[in-house]
Amino acid sequence: MCQSSVFIMENGKEKEIKRDVILVEPVDEGVKIQGFFEAPQVVPARIKTIDLLKHRIILEPIDLEKS
Amino acid sequence: MCQSSVFIMENGKEKEIKRDVILVEPVDEGVKIQGFFEAPQVVPARIKTIDLLKHRIILEPIDLEKS
Repeated sequence: MCQSSVFIMENGKEKEIKRDVILVEPVDEGVKIQGFFEAPQVVPARIKTIDLLKHRIILEPIDLEKS
Repeated sequence: MCQSSVFIMENGKEKEIKRDVILVEPVDEGVKIQGFFEAPQVVPARIKTIDLLKHRIILEPIDLEKS
């Protein structure tokens, strides 16, 4: 199997937010991330890069301010 | 290593467009897909699902009509 880790850009650096991720899906509120044997979580972000060689999915935060 | 195949939704079915993909990246014009030893291509689509268990990345076409 081939799970990846998910990182989010924070102050120009990649911060790991979840390991052993099996499913990533853009949703209205951001990106849904599902780990192995875990409930999915939604992160207010968008996908920046999926690097399948390094097994890394990089997200960048989105501004959630809405009027 | 852990390359995935990229599929695009077409008439409700998944159509494989590239195998052995190492990098996927949303860009303004759609999604950039890079294969192993190949130049990247840009597909007018957005990411629908990244399934890391099945090694499948599913795209859905976007409407490119712009005024």
